[in-house]
Amino acid sequence: MSESEQQRLDGVSVGILLAPEGSEEVEFVEPRDALTDAGADVEVLGPETGEVQTVNNDLEESDTYEVERDIAEASPDDYDALVVPGGTVGADKLRADEETVQFLSEHVEAGKPVGVICHGPWTLVEADLAEGRTLTSYSSLETDVENAGGEWVDEEVVVDDGVITSRNPDDLDAFCETLVEEFADAAA
Amino acid sequence: MSESEQQRLDGVSVGILLAPEGSEEVEFVEPRDALTDAGADVEVLGPETGEVQTVNNDLEESDTYEVERDIAEASPDDYDALVVPGGTVGADKLRADEETVQFLSEHVEAGKPVGVICHGPWTLVEADLAEGRTLTSYSSLETDVENAGGEWVDEEVVVDDGVITSRNPDDLDAFCETLVEEFADAAA
Repeated sequence: MSESEQQRLDGVSVGILLAPEGSEEVEFVEPRDALTDAGADVEVLGPETGEVQTVNNDLEESDTYEVERDIAEASPDDYDALVVPGGTVGADKLRADEETVQFLSEHVEAGKPVGVICHGPWTLVEADLAEGRTLTSYSSLETDVENAGGEWVDEEVVVDDGVITSRNPDDLDAFCETLVEEFADAAA
Repeated sequence: MSESEQQRLDGVSVGILLAPEGSEEVEFVEPRDALTDAGADVEVLGPETGEVQTVNNDLEESDTYEVERDIAEASPDDYDALVVPGGTVGADKLRADEETVQFLSEHVEAGKPVGVICHGPWTLVEADLAEGRTLTSYSSLETDVENAGGEWVDEEVVVDDGVITSRNPDDLDAFCETLVEEFADAAA
Protein backbone atom coordinates (compact mmCIF):
# COMPACT_ATOMS: atom_id res chain seq x y z
CA MET A 1 0.00 0.00 0.00
CA SER A 2 1.43 3.41 -0.96
CA GLU A 3 1.51 6.31 1.46
CA SER A 4 -1.33 8.06 -0.35
CA GLU A 5 -3.51 4.95 -0.05
CA GLN A 6 -2.69 4.65 3.63
CA GLN A 7 -3.90 8.20 4.16
CA ARG A 8 -7.02 8.10 2.02
CA LEU A 9 -9.35 8.18 5.05
CA ASP A 10 -7.53 11.06 6.77
CA GLY A 11 -10.09 13.16 8.62
CA VAL A 12 -12.88 10.62 8.13
CA SER A 13 -14.73 9.74 11.34
CA VAL A 14 -15.97 6.15 11.61
CA GLY A 15 -18.12 4.64 14.36
CA ILE A 16 -17.87 0.88 14.91
CA LEU A 17 -20.64 -0.70 16.96
CA LEU A 18 -20.15 -3.31 19.67
CA ALA A 19 -22.96 -5.05 21.54
CA PRO A 20 -22.87 -5.43 25.34
CA GLU A 21 -21.86 -9.05 24.62
CA GLY A 22 -21.64 -11.50 21.75
CA SER A 23 -20.19 -9.45 18.91
CA GLU A 24 -17.88 -11.53 16.73
CA GLU A 25 -14.33 -10.40 17.56
CA VAL A 26 -12.76 -10.71 14.10
CA GLU A 27 -15.63 -8.80 12.49
CA PHE A 28 -14.86 -5.92 14.85
CA VAL A 29 -11.05 -6.04 14.90
CA GLU A 30 -10.34 -6.42 11.17
CA PRO A 31 -12.53 -3.53 9.96
CA ARG A 32 -11.25 -1.38 12.85
CA ASP A 33 -7.63 -2.04 11.89
CA ALA A 34 -8.19 -1.64 8.14
CA LEU A 35 -9.93 1.71 8.63
CA THR A 36 -7.37 2.94 11.15
CA ASP A 37 -4.54 1.91 8.82
CA ALA A 38 -6.19 3.94 6.05
CA GLY A 39 -6.13 7.02 8.24
CA ALA A 40 -9.69 7.08 9.64
CA ASP A 41 -10.52 8.24 13.17
CA VAL A 42 -12.33 5.24 14.60
CA GLU A 43 -14.55 5.35 17.69
CA VAL A 44 -16.32 2.38 19.30
CA LEU A 45 -20.01 2.92 20.02
CA GLY A 46 -22.59 0.75 21.73
CA PRO A 47 -25.63 0.52 23.96
CA GLU A 48 -23.34 0.11 27.01
CA THR A 49 -19.99 1.79 27.60
CA GLY A 50 -17.00 0.09 29.21
CA GLU A 51 -15.40 -3.28 28.56
CA VAL A 52 -17.63 -5.69 26.62
CA GLN A 53 -17.17 -9.38 25.89
CA THR A 54 -16.65 -10.50 22.29
CA VAL A 55 -16.79 -14.06 20.93
CA ASN A 56 -15.22 -16.33 18.35
CA ASN A 57 -17.52 -18.56 16.31
CA ASP A 58 -20.56 -17.17 18.12
CA LEU A 59 -20.08 -18.99 21.44
CA GLU A 60 -16.40 -19.06 22.42
CA GLU A 61 -15.49 -16.29 24.85
CA SER A 62 -12.75 -14.11 23.36
CA ASP A 63 -11.20 -10.76 24.37
CA THR A 64 -12.98 -7.76 25.83
CA TYR A 65 -12.91 -4.33 24.17
CA GLU A 66 -13.87 -0.88 25.34
CA VAL A 67 -17.03 0.78 24.11
CA GLU A 68 -15.95 4.43 24.24
CA ARG A 69 -19.27 6.15 23.73
CA ASP A 70 -22.89 5.39 24.59
CA ILE A 71 -24.80 5.41 21.32
CA ALA A 72 -27.77 7.02 23.08
CA GLU A 73 -25.58 10.07 23.74
CA ALA A 74 -23.91 10.18 20.31
CA SER A 75 -25.13 12.09 17.28
CA PRO A 76 -25.17 10.62 13.76
CA ASP A 77 -23.72 14.02 12.72
CA ASP A 78 -20.45 13.04 14.40
CA TYR A 79 -19.69 10.11 12.05
CA ASP A 80 -19.03 10.00 8.33
CA ALA A 81 -19.45 6.21 8.25
CA LEU A 82 -20.49 3.29 10.46
CA VAL A 83 -19.61 -0.42 10.76
CA VAL A 84 -21.85 -3.10 12.31
CA PRO A 85 -20.17 -6.46 13.06
CA GLY A 86 -22.03 -9.74 13.47
CA GLY A 87 -22.03 -12.47 16.03
CA THR A 88 -25.47 -14.05 16.37
CA VAL A 89 -26.03 -12.92 19.94
CA GLY A 90 -24.34 -9.54 19.47
CA ALA A 91 -26.36 -8.66 16.37
CA ASP A 92 -29.57 -9.76 18.10
CA LYS A 93 -28.75 -7.44 21.02
CA LEU A 94 -27.95 -4.49 18.73
CA ARG A 95 -31.23 -4.85 16.82
CA ALA A 96 -33.08 -5.00 20.13
CA ASP A 97 -31.68 -1.61 21.21
CA GLU A 98 -33.99 1.19 20.07
CA GLU A 99 -31.33 3.92 20.21
CA THR A 100 -28.99 1.84 18.05
CA VAL A 101 -31.67 1.22 15.44
CA GLN A 102 -32.70 4.89 15.39
CA PHE A 103 -29.06 5.99 15.10
CA LEU A 104 -28.44 3.65 12.18
CA SER A 105 -31.61 4.77 10.44
CA GLU A 106 -30.74 8.49 10.75
CA HIS A 107 -27.18 7.86 9.57
CA VAL A 108 -28.21 6.06 6.40
CA GLU A 109 -31.13 8.37 5.67
CA ALA A 110 -28.61 11.23 5.81
CA GLY A 111 -26.86 9.61 2.84
CA LYS A 112 -23.84 8.28 4.75
CA PRO A 113 -22.41 4.78 4.25
CA VAL A 114 -22.54 1.78 6.59
CA GLY A 115 -20.78 -1.58 6.39
CA VAL A 116 -22.64 -4.54 7.91
CA ILE A 117 -21.47 -8.14 8.04
CA CYS A 118 -22.74 -11.63 8.90
CA HIS A 119 -25.70 -11.47 11.34
CA GLY A 120 -25.31 -7.67 11.51
CA PRO A 121 -27.95 -7.10 8.77
CA TRP A 122 -30.70 -7.87 11.33
CA THR A 123 -30.08 -4.24 12.34
CA LEU A 124 -30.87 -3.17 8.76
CA VAL A 125 -34.11 -5.18 8.88
CA GLU A 126 -35.00 -3.55 12.19
CA ALA A 127 -34.20 -0.03 10.91
CA ASP A 128 -36.28 -0.66 7.77
CA LEU A 129 -33.20 -0.20 5.60
CA ALA A 130 -33.38 -3.58 3.84
CA GLU A 131 -36.51 -2.65 1.87
CA GLY A 132 -35.72 -1.90 -1.75
CA ARG A 133 -32.02 -2.72 -1.37
CA THR A 134 -29.94 -5.63 -2.61
CA LEU A 135 -27.81 -7.07 0.16
CA THR A 136 -26.15 -10.13 1.57
CA SER A 137 -25.70 -11.50 5.10
CA TYR A 138 -25.06 -14.74 6.94
CA SER A 139 -27.17 -17.26 5.05
CA SER A 140 -29.67 -17.82 7.88
CA LEU A 141 -30.90 -14.24 7.51
CA GLU A 142 -31.96 -14.64 3.87
CA THR A 143 -35.63 -15.12 4.73
CA ASP A 144 -35.70 -12.20 7.17
CA VAL A 145 -34.06 -9.89 4.61
CA GLU A 146 -36.47 -10.93 1.86
CA ASN A 147 -39.51 -10.67 4.16
CA ALA A 148 -38.32 -7.13 4.95
CA GLY A 149 -38.46 -6.28 1.25
CA GLY A 150 -34.80 -6.67 0.40
CA GLU A 151 -33.25 -8.69 -2.37
CA TRP A 152 -30.79 -11.20 -0.87
CA VAL A 153 -27.83 -12.37 -2.92
CA ASP A 154 -25.02 -14.83 -2.18
CA GLU A 155 -21.94 -12.67 -2.88
CA GLU A 156 -18.88 -11.84 -0.79
CA VAL A 157 -19.60 -8.15 -0.78
CA VAL A 158 -22.56 -6.10 -2.02
CA VAL A 159 -22.85 -2.31 -2.23
CA ASP A 160 -26.28 -0.72 -2.70
CA ASP A 161 -27.17 2.89 -1.98
CA GLY A 162 -24.69 3.36 0.85
CA VAL A 163 -25.12 -0.06 2.43
CA ILE A 164 -22.12 -2.41 2.16
CA THR A 165 -22.78 -6.02 3.25
CA SER A 166 -20.84 -9.29 3.49
CA ARG A 167 -21.76 -12.84 4.49
CA ASN A 168 -19.31 -14.07 7.14
CA PRO A 169 -15.70 -13.80 8.42
CA ASP A 170 -14.36 -15.47 5.25
CA ASP A 171 -15.40 -12.33 3.35
CA LEU A 172 -13.45 -9.95 5.61
CA ASP A 173 -10.67 -9.13 3.14
CA ALA A 174 -13.15 -8.04 0.47
CA PHE A 175 -15.39 -6.38 3.06
CA CYS A 176 -12.57 -4.30 4.57
CA GLU A 177 -11.20 -3.30 1.17
CA THR A 178 -14.66 -2.18 0.05
CA LEU A 179 -15.24 -0.26 3.29
CA VAL A 180 -12.09 1.79 2.67
CA GLU A 181 -13.06 2.47 -0.95
CA GLU A 182 -16.67 3.38 -0.25
CA PHE A 183 -15.93 5.46 2.84
CA ALA A 184 -13.27 7.37 0.89
CA ASP A 185 -15.66 8.01 -1.99
CA ALA A 186 -18.42 9.17 0.36
CA ALA A 187 -16.08 11.55 2.18
CA ALA A 188 -14.55 12.94 -1.02
CA MET B 1 -51.18 -33.23 40.56
CA SER B 2 -53.53 -36.21 40.65
CA GLU B 3 -52.63 -39.57 39.16
CA SER B 4 -55.01 -39.03 36.23
CA GLU B 5 -53.36 -35.68 35.43
CA GLN B 6 -49.93 -37.25 35.63
CA GLN B 7 -50.94 -39.81 33.03
CA ARG B 8 -52.79 -37.55 30.63
CA LEU B 9 -50.07 -37.81 27.97
CA ASP B 10 -49.76 -41.62 28.18
CA GLY B 11 -48.96 -42.95 24.72
CA VAL B 12 -48.29 -39.50 23.30
CA SER B 13 -45.00 -39.24 21.41
CA VAL B 14 -43.19 -35.90 21.63
CA GLY B 15 -40.04 -34.81 19.80
CA ILE B 16 -37.94 -32.06 21.38
CA LEU B 17 -35.39 -30.38 19.14
CA LEU B 18 -31.83 -29.51 20.12
CA ALA B 19 -29.36 -27.62 17.94
CA PRO B 20 -25.75 -28.81 17.49
CA GLU B 21 -24.88 -26.03 19.95
CA GLY B 22 -26.43 -23.01 21.60
CA SER B 23 -29.90 -24.19 22.60
CA GLU B 24 -31.01 -22.61 25.89
CA GLU B 25 -30.77 -25.37 28.51
CA VAL B 26 -33.77 -24.46 30.65
CA GLU B 27 -36.03 -24.17 27.60
CA PHE B 28 -35.11 -27.76 26.76
CA VAL B 29 -35.07 -29.30 30.25
CA GLU B 30 -38.27 -27.84 31.68
CA PRO B 31 -40.59 -28.80 28.79
CA ARG B 32 -38.90 -32.23 28.61
CA ASP B 33 -39.52 -32.84 32.31
CA ALA B 34 -43.07 -31.50 32.30
CA LEU B 35 -44.04 -33.66 29.33
CA THR B 36 -42.31 -36.75 30.73
CA ASP B 37 -44.01 -36.21 34.10
CA ALA B 38 -47.36 -36.07 32.31
CA GLY B 39 -46.68 -39.48 30.76
CA ALA B 40 -45.42 -38.55 27.29
CA ASP B 41 -42.72 -40.52 25.47
CA VAL B 42 -40.11 -37.86 24.76
CA GLU B 43 -37.36 -38.20 22.16
CA VAL B 44 -34.62 -35.66 21.44
CA LEU B 45 -34.16 -34.80 17.75
CA GLY B 46 -31.68 -32.60 15.98
CA PRO B 47 -29.52 -31.98 12.92
CA GLU B 48 -26.61 -33.80 14.62
CA THR B 49 -26.83 -36.84 16.90
CA GLY B 50 -24.67 -37.33 19.99
CA GLU B 51 -23.84 -35.00 22.86
CA VAL B 52 -24.55 -31.35 22.12
CA GLN B 53 -23.65 -28.26 24.11
CA THR B 54 -26.43 -26.15 25.63
CA VAL B 55 -26.14 -22.65 27.12
CA ASN B 56 -27.51 -20.45 29.88
CA ASN B 57 -28.41 -16.85 29.01
CA ASP B 58 -27.31 -17.41 25.40
CA LEU B 59 -23.52 -17.42 25.97
CA GLU B 60 -22.66 -19.31 29.17
CA GLU B 61 -21.65 -22.91 28.47
CA SER B 62 -23.94 -25.28 30.37
CA ASP B 63 -24.50 -29.06 30.30
CA THR B 64 -24.42 -31.32 27.27
CA TYR B 65 -27.40 -33.52 26.29
CA GLU B 66 -27.80 -36.38 23.87
CA VAL B 67 -29.58 -35.91 20.57
CA GLU B 68 -31.04 -39.40 20.11
CA ARG B 69 -32.20 -39.17 16.55
CA ASP B 70 -31.08 -37.36 13.40
CA ILE B 71 -34.02 -35.29 12.24
CA ALA B 72 -33.08 -36.03 8.61
CA GLU B 73 -33.80 -39.72 9.30
CA ALA B 74 -36.96 -39.18 11.37
CA SER B 75 -40.53 -39.05 10.05
CA PRO B 76 -43.06 -36.46 11.20
CA ASP B 77 -45.47 -39.45 11.38
CA ASP B 78 -43.55 -40.67 14.43
CA TYR B 79 -44.44 -37.69 16.65
CA ASP B 80 -47.77 -36.43 17.95
CA ALA B 81 -46.22 -33.15 19.04
CA LEU B 82 -42.97 -31.16 18.87
CA VAL B 83 -41.13 -28.64 21.04
CA VAL B 84 -38.57 -26.10 19.79
CA PRO B 85 -36.48 -24.36 22.48
CA GLY B 86 -34.69 -21.04 22.00
CA GLY B 87 -31.19 -19.82 22.63
CA THR B 88 -30.19 -17.18 20.07
CA VAL B 89 -27.43 -19.26 18.49
CA GLY B 90 -29.31 -22.56 18.79
CA ALA B 91 -32.47 -21.21 17.16
CA ASP B 92 -30.42 -19.63 14.38
CA LYS B 93 -28.77 -22.99 13.71
CA LEU B 94 -32.11 -24.86 13.68
CA ARG B 95 -33.64 -22.42 11.19
CA ALA B 96 -30.57 -22.81 8.98
CA ASP B 97 -31.05 -26.59 8.76
CA GLU B 98 -33.26 -27.44 5.78
CA GLU B 99 -34.33 -30.86 7.10
CA THR B 100 -35.41 -29.33 10.40
CA VAL B 101 -37.48 -26.66 8.68
CA GLN B 102 -39.08 -29.20 6.33
CA PHE B 103 -39.85 -31.54 9.23
CA LEU B 104 -41.49 -28.76 11.23
CA SER B 105 -43.51 -27.64 8.23
CA GLU B 106 -44.83 -31.15 7.52
CA HIS B 107 -45.65 -31.71 11.19
CA VAL B 108 -47.75 -28.55 11.52
CA GLU B 109 -49.36 -28.92 8.10
CA ALA B 110 -50.49 -32.39 9.26
CA GLY B 111 -52.49 -30.64 11.99
CA LYS B 112 -50.24 -31.59 14.89
CA PRO B 113 -49.19 -29.15 17.64
CA VAL B 114 -45.80 -27.58 18.27
CA GLY B 115 -44.56 -25.48 21.20
CA VAL B 116 -41.91 -22.86 20.40
CA ILE B 117 -40.27 -20.46 22.85
CA CYS B 118 -38.00 -17.40 22.91
CA HIS B 119 -35.83 -17.24 19.73
CA GLY B 120 -37.32 -20.58 18.56
CA PRO B 121 -39.99 -18.84 16.44
CA TRP B 122 -37.34 -18.04 13.81
CA THR B 123 -37.98 -21.66 12.78
CA LEU B 124 -41.66 -20.80 12.27
CA VAL B 125 -40.67 -17.83 10.10
CA GLU B 126 -38.35 -20.07 8.08
CA ALA B 127 -41.03 -22.78 7.67
CA ASP B 128 -43.56 -20.15 6.57
CA LEU B 129 -45.76 -21.00 9.57
CA ALA B 130 -45.91 -17.48 11.02
CA GLU B 131 -48.05 -16.16 8.19
CA GLY B 132 -51.66 -15.70 9.25
CA ARG B 133 -50.99 -16.75 12.84
CA THR B 134 -50.90 -14.77 16.06
CA LEU B 135 -47.80 -15.59 18.05
CA THR B 136 -45.24 -14.33 20.51
CA SER B 137 -41.46 -14.79 20.84
CA TYR B 138 -38.42 -13.13 22.35
CA SER B 139 -39.04 -9.43 21.76
CA SER B 140 -36.21 -9.01 19.23
CA LEU B 141 -38.08 -11.28 16.76
CA GLU B 142 -41.19 -9.07 16.61
CA THR B 143 -40.18 -7.44 13.31
CA ASP B 144 -39.20 -10.77 11.70
CA VAL B 145 -42.52 -12.34 12.73
CA GLU B 146 -44.54 -9.39 11.43
CA ASN B 147 -42.55 -9.21 8.19
CA ALA B 148 -43.36 -12.91 7.74
CA GLY B 149 -47.08 -12.11 7.92
CA GLY B 150 -47.70 -13.04 11.54
CA GLU B 151 -49.35 -10.96 14.22
CA TRP B 152 -46.93 -10.54 17.15
CA VAL B 153 -48.34 -10.05 20.65
CA ASP B 154 -46.63 -9.52 24.00
CA GLU B 155 -48.21 -12.33 26.09
CA GLU B 156 -46.69 -15.12 28.17
CA VAL B 157 -48.26 -17.84 26.07
CA VAL B 158 -50.23 -17.76 22.82
CA VAL B 159 -52.03 -20.64 21.11
CA ASP B 160 -53.11 -20.31 17.48
CA ASP B 161 -53.97 -23.14 15.14
CA GLY B 162 -51.65 -25.70 16.71
CA VAL B 163 -48.75 -23.33 17.38
CA ILE B 164 -48.02 -22.59 21.05
CA THR B 165 -45.50 -19.78 21.66
CA SER B 166 -43.91 -18.03 24.65
CA ARG B 167 -41.47 -15.12 25.03
CA ASN B 168 -38.58 -16.20 27.26
CA PRO B 169 -37.57 -18.44 30.19
CA ASP B 170 -39.72 -16.43 32.61
CA ASP B 171 -42.77 -17.81 30.78
CA LEU B 172 -41.76 -21.46 31.21
CA ASP B 173 -44.38 -22.36 33.85
CA ALA B 174 -47.23 -21.16 31.65
CA PHE B 175 -45.58 -22.56 28.52
CA CYS B 176 -45.14 -26.06 29.99
CA GLU B 177 -48.65 -26.15 31.44
CA THR B 178 -50.10 -25.13 28.07
CA LEU B 179 -47.99 -27.72 26.22
CA VAL B 180 -49.46 -30.51 28.40
CA GLU B 181 -53.02 -29.24 27.87
CA GLU B 182 -52.73 -28.70 24.15
CA PHE B 183 -50.83 -31.92 23.46
CA ALA B 184 -53.45 -33.86 25.48
CA ASP B 185 -56.30 -32.23 23.56
CA ALA B 186 -54.63 -32.92 20.21
CA ALA B 187 -54.03 -36.56 21.07
CA ALA B 188 -57.56 -37.13 22.47
